Amino acid sequence: VITELAGTGRTVRISADLPVVIIGERINPTGRKRLAAALAAGDLSLLRSDAVQQVQAGAQILDINVGVPGTDERALLAAAVKEVQAAVDLPLCIDTANAAALDAALAVYQGKALVNSVTAEDAALDRVLPIVKRYGAAVIGLAHDERGISTSPEQRLAAARKIVARAAALDISPEDVVIDPLALTVGADSAAGLVTLSTIQLVRQTLGNNITLGASNASFGLPDRPTLNATFLAMAVAVGVTCPITNPLDAVARKALLAADLFLGHDAYGGNWIRFYRAAMRGLQS
Amino acid sequence: VITELAGTGRTVRISADLPVVIIGERINPTGRKRLAAALAAGDLSLLRSDAVQQVQAGAQILDINVGVPGTDERALLAAAVKEVQAAVDLPLCIDTANAAALDAALAVYQGKALVNSVTAEDAALDRVLPIVKRYGAAVIGLAHDERGISTSPEQRLAAARKIVARAAALDISPEDVVIDPLALTVGADSAAGLVTLSTIQLVRQTLGNNITLGASNASFGLPDRPTLNATFLAMAVAVGVTCPITNPLDAVARKALLAADLFLGHDAYGGNWIRFYRAAMRGLQS
Repeated sequence: VITELAGTGRTVRISADLPVVIIGERINPTGRKRLAAALAAGDLSLLRSDAVQQVQAGAQILDINVGVPGTDERALLAAAVKEVQAAVDLPLCIDTANAAALDAALAVYQGKALVNSVTAEDAALDRVLPIVKRYGAAVIGLAHDERGISTSPEQRLAAARKIVARAAALDISPEDVVIDPLALTVGADSAAGLVTLSTIQLVRQTLGNNITLGASNASFGLPDRPTLNATFLAMAVAVGVTCPITNPLDAVARKALLAADLFLGHDAYGGNWIRFYRAAMRGLQS
Repeated sequence: VITELAGTGRTVRISADLPVVIIGERINPTGRKRLAAALAAGDLSLLRSDAVQQVQAGAQILDINVGVPGTDERALLAAAVKEVQAAVDLPLCIDTANAAALDAALAVYQGKALVNSVTAEDAALDRVLPIVKRYGAAVIGLAHDERGISTSPEQRLAAARKIVARAAALDISPEDVVIDPLALTVGADSAAGLVTLSTIQLVRQTLGNNITLGASNASFGLPDRPTLNATFLAMAVAVGVTCPITNPLDAVARKALLAADLFLGHDAYGGNWIRFYRAAMRGLQS
């Protein structure tokens, strides 16, 4: 299974046989007061530097979320997409819960986007999938349905399967459905990590879709989150995640993903690993 | 499957449903000139401090290798076992290619030891398994046979299966056979890591034995080996390794294994993770 996405100048392929693709998560006002304030004031200049920084750090897709209360997300998201596409040429992941904003953003988007996201709830599928189809985009399917986020990997698999089936009914191919198995914090439920990892294995083995993951939720509330996030990312990639959503500026996570690529046979002779190491050494010396 | 080992005062259980068990690798003269010189001179005093340090750092089993050219390994290994068992109460892993030394060491060992190791070669099986059986020990089976170390996970699985079957024929139960899938360096063969990870998955899914791994071979010759080793350990544990052989004094590896335990549901509410973090913080402040 190969998911192909495109920006203005670059096509990115996601597959278990290729190196991990990082979806850069930084363009999101949640927890970033300065970005939230800028967006609320209609100032999009931060988006450009955020975009360029993430691409330089190794992101191959950028998530774009501009959800700030009190703003017109429909206008803001489309403007943000234009702004970021003027700065970087790789594919974007349009992140919104607002169908009108999604539609407006895809209308101005150049290339083939990834839509973040749809759940397995009937209302969400009915609302989002036709828009995905209309614009020929790909979509992230969150592995939960009307019953909420299950603690059973089999039920999460069932939700993923439902999304893939409903997409297929609209002629959206499995290549264009990327599954998010969902990660909850292990600080609240000790089994949460294992449920996520087991879901990844089930999706990989039975559906075969590409798999994303917002791994950092898992470490919420615990000390030394960078190490926890990096370890969870490596474990998740070992069992089947192919395009995690993460912060490429986090060097600990970045190194774990490069190392994971190396051990999965996706970095011939450690070329990428050695290049990253040398660049880091130069950074320390300068 | 639960492997139970015992030292003079402590029983250790290894299982996929329990936290990872670290086999401390430090008591081995390979690459440790000072230890090699001490052993060659018949001085065993370093073993005690090496043993205590590793236990304090979280090892639950200690590997004991005293192979130094020009020494009488038979006498030295037995003396080393006595020396270490006088210092720490947990199980030991008797590491030798010399059957007479193994026999002598097990004869003085108190408890139930782990023997490191036997291959799937007929001559090795004939030589080692009867000794393992005689002393009621458990044994590590290296996943290679007369044909050498295969690049095919299926052939490594076949070697593991042969060891389990030959052990069973001597009434050594599968619980008492721990499989080592073998790790070669990815610097020489880019597929080496994937072969190891795939072998782990096959052994876990088809045989179900406990699985050990000397993960650090994989990073040989590459920069930033601690990060590579830690990442490979986390990935290996994610797919089925239950008792890696590693250096517990390596804080990067130690943290990755604690994080892996957390994400596999083996650390309720992150208790061990938080304790380790606090201890590390106290260490930095003192």
